[in-house]
Amino acid sequence: MADPDRIKAVADHVAFTRNHGNDVVVVVSAMGKSTDNLISLANAVSGIQPGREMDMLLTAGERISMSLLCIALAGIGIDAVSFTGSQVGIITDTVHTKAKILEVKGDRVRDALAAGKVVVVAGFQGVSTDSEVTTLGRGGSDTTAVALAAALDADVCEIYTDVTGVFTADPRIVPQARKLARLQFEEMLEMAGVGSKVLALRSVEFARNHNVPIHVRSSFTWEHGTWVANEASEGGATMEDPVISGVVQDASESKVTVIAVPDRPGISAALFENLANANINVDMIVQNTSKDGLTDISFTVPKADMRAAEDIVARVAVEIGAQAVTHDADIAKVSLVGAGMKTSPGIAARMFRVLADNNVNIHMISTSTIRVSVVVSLSDMETAVRALHTAFGLDSGTAYSAPLPERK
Amino acid sequence: MADPDRIKAVADHVAFTRNHGNDVVVVVSAMGKSTDNLISLANAVSGIQPGREMDMLLTAGERISMSLLCIALAGIGIDAVSFTGSQVGIITDTVHTKAKILEVKGDRVRDALAAGKVVVVAGFQGVSTDSEVTTLGRGGSDTTAVALAAALDADVCEIYTDVTGVFTADPRIVPQARKLARLQFEEMLEMAGVGSKVLALRSVEFARNHNVPIHVRSSFTWEHGTWVANEASEGGATMEDPVISGVVQDASESKVTVIAVPDRPGISAALFENLANANINVDMIVQNTSKDGLTDISFTVPKADMRAAEDIVARVAVEIGAQAVTHDADIAKVSLVGAGMKTSPGIAARMFRVLADNNVNIHMISTSTIRVSVVVSLSDMETAVRALHTAFGLDSGTAYSAPLPERK
Repeated sequence: MADPDRIKAVADHVAFTRNHGNDVVVVVSAMGKSTDNLISLANAVSGIQPGREMDMLLTAGERISMSLLCIALAGIGIDAVSFTGSQVGIITDTVHTKAKILEVKGDRVRDALAAGKVVVVAGFQGVSTDSEVTTLGRGGSDTTAVALAAALDADVCEIYTDVTGVFTADPRIVPQARKLARLQFEEMLEMAGVGSKVLALRSVEFARNHNVPIHVRSSFTWEHGTWVANEASEGGATMEDPVISGVVQDASESKVTVIAVPDRPGISAALFENLANANINVDMIVQNTSKDGLTDISFTVPKADMRAAEDIVARVAVEIGAQAVTHDADIAKVSLVGAGMKTSPGIAARMFRVLADNNVNIHMISTSTIRVSVVVSLSDMETAVRALHTAFGLDSGTAYSAPLPERK
Repeated sequence: MADPDRIKAVADHVAFTRNHGNDVVVVVSAMGKSTDNLISLANAVSGIQPGREMDMLLTAGERISMSLLCIALAGIGIDAVSFTGSQVGIITDTVHTKAKILEVKGDRVRDALAAGKVVVVAGFQGVSTDSEVTTLGRGGSDTTAVALAAALDADVCEIYTDVTGVFTADPRIVPQARKLARLQFEEMLEMAGVGSKVLALRSVEFARNHNVPIHVRSSFTWEHGTWVANEASEGGATMEDPVISGVVQDASESKVTVIAVPDRPGISAALFENLANANINVDMIVQNTSKDGLTDISFTVPKADMRAAEDIVARVAVEIGAQAVTHDADIAKVSLVGAGMKTSPGIAARMFRVLADNNVNIHMISTSTIRVSVVVSLSDMETAVRALHTAFGLDSGTAYSAPLPERK
């Protein structure tokens, strides 16, 4: 919610849904840049920022949003009531700035709904088991929404974003990318895991674990977005799963290669334990078959962690007797995701062929049952995404396998 | 607290007090114009503003201040913890936007102090007996501070304002006005009641009822301000009370006169009951001795209430058979306040003589045991204030009666 006009637009949207006979619980995030502004203020007063106080500070943002939305709803005749995470009973652990939800009580929400009110809840926040205000960290508002939907046994959790749904590829790279009518949780998890920014991985995991159907849509339009649900659950037209749901790219990582490592037990453990202890998130790991008792180990880490990773790897490389360490920041990960892969063999082979035909060299490969990811040079990323999108029938008006239903 | 620099200055001030061996509880108000900005946002989204949601909205302001102050304190090595009104147990009635404090629990404050922490509390807010967030209305932060000081049996409640203390007159009108070293609660109450803006009447009442010494000072300097306390209590030098403590003016009211009212029982009741039912705050009321069975009744009301008052008075005037109603917005109230009046007869007479000597005509007069107020034309206000300030020995380096101690 960016400004008063957007708040009024959201209020209209809520009123519409309410007036169609639905009980509505709205989870709000902070307005526009207000969270950034609060962080700037904190930076301006001190370099030391206790987590408890940062949480107290940042929760002001959602508090402002939720009360303004209730005021806007009052202005159009909708009886609404706002609740903080604490008032709703979003019980978390005690880890400030990135707390995990342990339980959602929701009694006040149920009472307010029973009294015919629209309920507006502050996202991103909760109260810890020792009665302190906490925030949920990245993806927190989506997670609040899904957790509340699960606790209240809601029909659907609608998540409003700045895009109209989940697309077969990033429309900035592939103009003919199509909005997906529906996705399985598993597919959305893989997409979020390999770089899709539409939904936070964490909220999708929560939704899958509690079987909460998610409808990803835009608050700027009334059009249907993308349903994310279990295969058998509600939402969207029934259909055969397409083999491939989408192509996802991620240029946020760098590649590290440790060359000519003696191939003996404990080598990988030594390397990755040290990185894990430094809280560095290692993503893809590839180890080649050894030759002459030596092997190469490559892995990717977020660019932000690269400096820290370099130091650790340089040290460990000496300890394990590796020959050299190389780094490459100009890489990108390109992934094909699709639940249909489980029953369609040969997807990976076809993917590699398409890339070869387009002169895209593959640096690393990693697969899951419903995903194939490759690391390529950053300069090849867009070519790879476009070629795969076309080759796997994802362009508008084409189909690689089972056709997708018409969107509206 | 206006901006990050001011917050850091307040943090330094708190650290200084803390490092001199004091347990410190800080009550904060919202930063600069943040409350006004939140109200503007509410106005932008709706003309209907439920009190509960306005309270939820406005409490975000103090929440931001308190956490930023704790973060600033952390930056200079002071262990601090912030609490909302709810967390502190500021229990109020259920009247949103102008709740009254019923009780202060303060358990978390005591525990935090015992653990050696500085405690920062959000002013202006509480939690109602039905568990809703409330705000205390005008003067709320001062009232929170005094209420907490009373509950914690504090040595003193320091109130930081944008002036360095309470002055013998408004320095913008009387350049030679002097800062008062000390005042009795009674005097401060009278001053606040007749227009002094330094302390909210309500917080002074609370301080008197619970005998909490107040030290009014500026957060911009380290100089001593004005102590407000009982006669016998701590603060300031021991001394004879001066006869007059100060001259206070108030140009925020208008005068209404109902002319030639039949002087019979129930007339005043009819008039003022109707005004009270419309929530109009009537201040001074003067009724002349009747002549030929007719009398004139004059009273003052806030200019903001004038329109509503006119309609009511016009209606009632007809009912009670009054001859006419006149209004005058160009008036001002000028008051002399001083506990010494109790034992110094003739102050009122001398006041009227001074005004006459300066060609200031008096419209209305009202007195209490330690105050004399007159209503004069607005154009005479500054002349009256200056003349009285000089005549009663309040100018720097002069004394009307017992000398005031040197200030430093």
